[in-house]
Amino acid sequence: MGSKLKTAIIGSTGYGGVELIRLLASHPLAEVTSVISSSSAGSPIAEGYPHLTEIRTDLLDDVDPALIKSKADVVFIATPSGIASKLTPSMLEAGLKVIDLSGDHRLKSPEVYETWYKKTPASQNTLDLAVYGLAEIYGDAVRDQTLISNPGCYSTATLLGLIPAVKAGYIDPATIIIDAKSGVSGAGRGVNLGSHYSEVNENFSAYKLNKHQHNPEIEQVLSAEAGYPVVTTFSTHLVPMTRGIMSTMYATVKDGRSTDEFIAFYRSFYEGRPFVRIRQEGTWPSTKEVWGSNYCDIGFAVDERTGRVTIVSVIDNLVKGAAGQAIQNLNLMMGWDETLGLQFVPVYP
Amino acid sequence: MGSKLKTAIIGSTGYGGVELIRLLASHPLAEVTSVISSSSAGSPIAEGYPHLTEIRTDLLDDVDPALIKSKADVVFIATPSGIASKLTPSMLEAGLKVIDLSGDHRLKSPEVYETWYKKTPASQNTLDLAVYGLAEIYGDAVRDQTLISNPGCYSTATLLGLIPAVKAGYIDPATIIIDAKSGVSGAGRGVNLGSHYSEVNENFSAYKLNKHQHNPEIEQVLSAEAGYPVVTTFSTHLVPMTRGIMSTMYATVKDGRSTDEFIAFYRSFYEGRPFVRIRQEGTWPSTKEVWGSNYCDIGFAVDERTGRVTIVSVIDNLVKGAAGQAIQNLNLMMGWDETLGLQFVPVYP
Amino acid sequence: MGSKLKTAIIGSTGYGGVELIRLLASHPLAEVTSVISSSSAGSPIAEGYPHLTEIRTDLLDDVDPALIKSKADVVFIATPSGIASKLTPSMLEAGLKVIDLSGDHRLKSPEVYETWYKKTPASQNTLDLAVYGLAEIYGDAVRDQTLISNPGCYSTATLLGLIPAVKAGYIDPATIIIDAKSGVSGAGRGVNLGSHYSEVNENFSAYKLNKHQHNPEIEQVLSAEAGYPVVTTFSTHLVPMTRGIMSTMYATVKDGRSTDEFIAFYRSFYEGRPFVRIRQEGTWPSTKEVWGSNYCDIGFAVDERTGRVTIVSVIDNLVKGAAGQAIQNLNLMMGWDETLGLQFVPVYP
Amino acid sequence: MGSKLKTAIIGSTGYGGVELIRLLASHPLAEVTSVISSSSAGSPIAEGYPHLTEIRTDLLDDVDPALIKSKADVVFIATPSGIASKLTPSMLEAGLKVIDLSGDHRLKSPEVYETWYKKTPASQNTLDLAVYGLAEIYGDAVRDQTLISNPGCYSTATLLGLIPAVKAGYIDPATIIIDAKSGVSGAGRGVNLGSHYSEVNENFSAYKLNKHQHNPEIEQVLSAEAGYPVVTTFSTHLVPMTRGIMSTMYATVKDGRSTDEFIAFYRSFYEGRPFVRIRQEGTWPSTKEVWGSNYCDIGFAVDERTGRVTIVSVIDNLVKGAAGQAIQNLNLMMGWDETLGLQFVPVYP
Repeated sequence: MGSKLKTAIIGSTGYGGVELIRLLASHPLAEVTSVISSSSAGSPIAEGYPHLTEIRTDLLDDVDPALIKSKADVVFIATPSGIASKLTPSMLEAGLKVIDLSGDHRLKSPEVYETWYKKTPASQNTLDLAVYGLAEIYGDAVRDQTLISNPGCYSTATLLGLIPAVKAGYIDPATIIIDAKSGVSGAGRGVNLGSHYSEVNENFSAYKLNKHQHNPEIEQVLSAEAGYPVVTTFSTHLVPMTRGIMSTMYATVKDGRSTDEFIAFYRSFYEGRPFVRIRQEGTWPSTKEVWGSNYCDIGFAVDERTGRVTIVSVIDNLVKGAAGQAIQNLNLMMGWDETLGLQFVPVYP
Repeated sequence: MGSKLKTAIIGSTGYGGVELIRLLASHPLAEVTSVISSSSAGSPIAEGYPHLTEIRTDLLDDVDPALIKSKADVVFIATPSGIASKLTPSMLEAGLKVIDLSGDHRLKSPEVYETWYKKTPASQNTLDLAVYGLAEIYGDAVRDQTLISNPGCYSTATLLGLIPAVKAGYIDPATIIIDAKSGVSGAGRGVNLGSHYSEVNENFSAYKLNKHQHNPEIEQVLSAEAGYPVVTTFSTHLVPMTRGIMSTMYATVKDGRSTDEFIAFYRSFYEGRPFVRIRQEGTWPSTKEVWGSNYCDIGFAVDERTGRVTIVSVIDNLVKGAAGQAIQNLNLMMGWDETLGLQFVPVYP
Repeated sequence: MGSKLKTAIIGSTGYGGVELIRLLASHPLAEVTSVISSSSAGSPIAEGYPHLTEIRTDLLDDVDPALIKSKADVVFIATPSGIASKLTPSMLEAGLKVIDLSGDHRLKSPEVYETWYKKTPASQNTLDLAVYGLAEIYGDAVRDQTLISNPGCYSTATLLGLIPAVKAGYIDPATIIIDAKSGVSGAGRGVNLGSHYSEVNENFSAYKLNKHQHNPEIEQVLSAEAGYPVVTTFSTHLVPMTRGIMSTMYATVKDGRSTDEFIAFYRSFYEGRPFVRIRQEGTWPSTKEVWGSNYCDIGFAVDERTGRVTIVSVIDNLVKGAAGQAIQNLNLMMGWDETLGLQFVPVYP
Repeated sequence: MGSKLKTAIIGSTGYGGVELIRLLASHPLAEVTSVISSSSAGSPIAEGYPHLTEIRTDLLDDVDPALIKSKADVVFIATPSGIASKLTPSMLEAGLKVIDLSGDHRLKSPEVYETWYKKTPASQNTLDLAVYGLAEIYGDAVRDQTLISNPGCYSTATLLGLIPAVKAGYIDPATIIIDAKSGVSGAGRGVNLGSHYSEVNENFSAYKLNKHQHNPEIEQVLSAEAGYPVVTTFSTHLVPMTRGIMSTMYATVKDGRSTDEFIAFYRSFYEGRPFVRIRQEGTWPSTKEVWGSNYCDIGFAVDERTGRVTIVSVIDNLVKGAAGQAIQNLNLMMGWDETLGLQFVPVYP
């Protein structure tokens, strides 16, 4: 393992962090040399995560830039939003490359961040430095960068489903409505009534209607792609399952484009990007079909009666929506094949 | 029990039928005197449904109009669509009142039925006789009728959420998009890969996009309420849970109506109808909050940025979406208080 | 409602309390006149439990014996263990009858309580006053008492399955092994990692092996029935579901008793007690078959190869294992029919 | 890929087969060159399993020994029991090595097979040829063999938990009681009421008490290890989850062995076998902690009060209980490191 790239993970006791550990365990060119948690430093990571018994026998490190730099060259920050922005400058100063899985460096405007996250934003300088790592769209820009901002889980599923159509003028951006659904792991390992088993099981709920912090992220990207400000309706729902996001998206079709035209165009758009799979006419992906993998699967249904298209996009929120895409960004940053360590077959059933 | 109204249930071995049995067991003025199943006639109903052990010790009857008439005055038909239309005429001729839970008598046009259901429609005569029993809206028309068509589960959640706004001009009907989600029991007890546990568990899927047979039912009603043809986008999804439907609905708001105005108007619209509960600003109902009950709970979120309203409506698909509303229609048909036998507290958690 | 018995519920915001509210809402002779919570006093109960919207519009009361006595004659205590013992003396002094759903008054020995619960026990005086309300076995002793101790959920399923066989000498008590499984609601509404959805879903776990506090309760009763000290092996497991307990019990059969003899004997033992249902040979109950109801269903399998019997007993932990049996005890205490307000058909599916 | 060992999978459309495909996709020395299904021959495998879209684009082959031999050197048979025994002789004759995941070659006695499986047994000759591939116990015997019988899922969890204690005389084999629990995928992809989502969800059930076909398999092995006939009580239960088996085992301890002695002994017994992990005192494994991996985790609790030990053993039924152990057997058969292609971190959460 001596010649592998050394990486460290801040927030190793969260679901994003522990998924990075799982995925990097089979990466051919990178390894995890430090697992870090401010709250549990000094304990074996396998104590809180017994599934890692005999797999990772090391203790959790404290958040110390010099210590991290002595052990690693790249650091993943998998903390909640509001914490990553505080840690990032010292990591960069210590000479580490940073891949931030939180929401702290996604929005280019500190004001917009503050409005939606209700937290102190990162500095404009740091935000300017950050590259938004939506791998299939902005992968080229990631190479050799020092601060990558990993996209939000909802944003990833949604943007991969919408960008080609917006870019090519297949839909009218002013009509976009996004009805998104997520498994519970997206909310992290923190305990609260909203993730209590007896409250969530056999229940389907809507939350944060028009208020979710991934909404401005989606709009920032769509506006850039459209060339003018795009405003969207964005709803989020909680599904009684652990992993998986589906984004069901609606928009008015332009120029009478058919389902087949959408499929053909998306296939050509994503050619050579193996993690996006376009489904054939009449079928739509379900979340289980990408479970545990880095795939984003997309299907289409144009309705001539209404002149609208329905686009269905699914990912595993912890893989393509978090740890998997972060590793994909690591690969791109290092100039490696983007699929390294990520060629998992989805776990089915 | 001698003085209670006698009812029979065709399709007692399906989920709709067995839910009728559960609910009618505590009805003060009606009782089930015959449980009927063409496929299992002669067997004890508790054999296939052991939860009924010692509660119902009777055998399943065959589908025989004269026999049913000798035992009952009202018959619920809880068969799949395509069968109810064949049984109904002989039941009416035998002098029975019919409450049909299938989709066979909901659409007024045989042609539209054939297009969406891909089955032979009921005769125009029978369709003309049928009264559409969306209880809170058309309850008055149900009284003393002989053939009630019980609304679809998706249709009930959706229409109770949309009708007031369409009727009052709070929204533009041409912009309506309905993203609906259902638990698995809605597909019935028949076995197929689509209801196989290992395929559905930890999975969220979309199906029948723009093709679901409740779509023309919704449009038929909305068109009648609007006074002109309304076409809607309607998507259905399968949630890994047994019971519950959520309909998330989107439309462009007219006249700058606010969330508070929607709430106030819906509260006044449904005043005196105890099964519709309008939630307060900033909260939306979840399916578990109506689980096992006849409630339909509705919440609103107007977004000034987009000029759209999001309406969230939830029901228990087997109660308000099937057996419960059928009993509510029985109550209305008989001139009784519509809440008789239905005043259950939702089961939580 | 004026002539109904007035009852109050301490711990109304827990799952046991809110289930009492649900069940008592349809009780013909009792009503809930005060819902009490020390932590949320002053708030509407429907705020934390939106499923009670428009059903219970009252505010939560504080825990004040005089106030409670002014509003009610009987108080249910549905707090965690360790709290009920502190509240009970003042409630009794205020002239209230008490039905305690916690574990504080089940064990007759304060020392044994302290060993297993690791908490301060109730006084010996209060323990002596408490009647153990395992309704089908000790129902007669409950009448006209002032302090009823409602049995534990695991204990109820287990003891109803074992007592007849122990009493009649069908099995050797020294060989009893109890493998019990429970849904998550048994752990209450408190938030912790053990009830976090993403940890429990798609997971089956064992906990508190040989250490569960219902073990001494089971042994206390079996010892009394056997006439000598009985020690049992007792294991508890967490099932990824909300409600339901199954107790699978093993023991060496005496006198070559067959499955049929067990069934016949149990049927005669529980004759006239409608909430215990003995299943026929070759079938065993599942938890869903009693879901939402006050039933305890029991099945048997004697294996001639091993000389052992396997007894399967299921209940809904929140009904027969908590609130339902508490109401059954209220009925017995008041000299009413034990089934009043409890004649629910299980909710299936 | 040219130099990899070529393998074929009969029964590729079942859960065992599709899990073999998933796991072998990342095997460094073997590949799947033919996916076979008698019922769906000619169709793309990804049609029935869309999660394989773009991963496996080949069509399903028919069951033809010559064809298989032309494409592969080793064939996995992942059909239901009763079919594998019919296919095996022709595969062996064609010169293929066979790894049979069904139950057809596990029992050494055709009579015992017939009694428990109620099907026609394999010939005694073939049974004599078959090597029972419980990898950690009989791994040496697998090398260079031509017919490996892969152990049952329940048997694997149970035997890995019991063999060391039986072998070393830590427990009395006559007292063994096995209470086993499985996720639903163990029953395969075939549709029936027993795997219908609405019947299984929020339900825990017992089935085949004292009748499960893995019971004689367990007894055959334990008898061989003990040196005399061992009879066990064996119960199976269905858990509302897709993957995972827990076997909770009870036996009387000999010589006053403590929990610590069990742990120390098992650790030494399984030294060098990385897929068995022995948990520390006071903790027991849960099924999710081995989910998606080839691990078998085992924990212990000796109770001095009863003189019994409780042993908890968990596996993923589709990996260590089926496809994973089959690949482990392939590795052993070929003389490779047994962990090749199996070093997955469990998927958590």
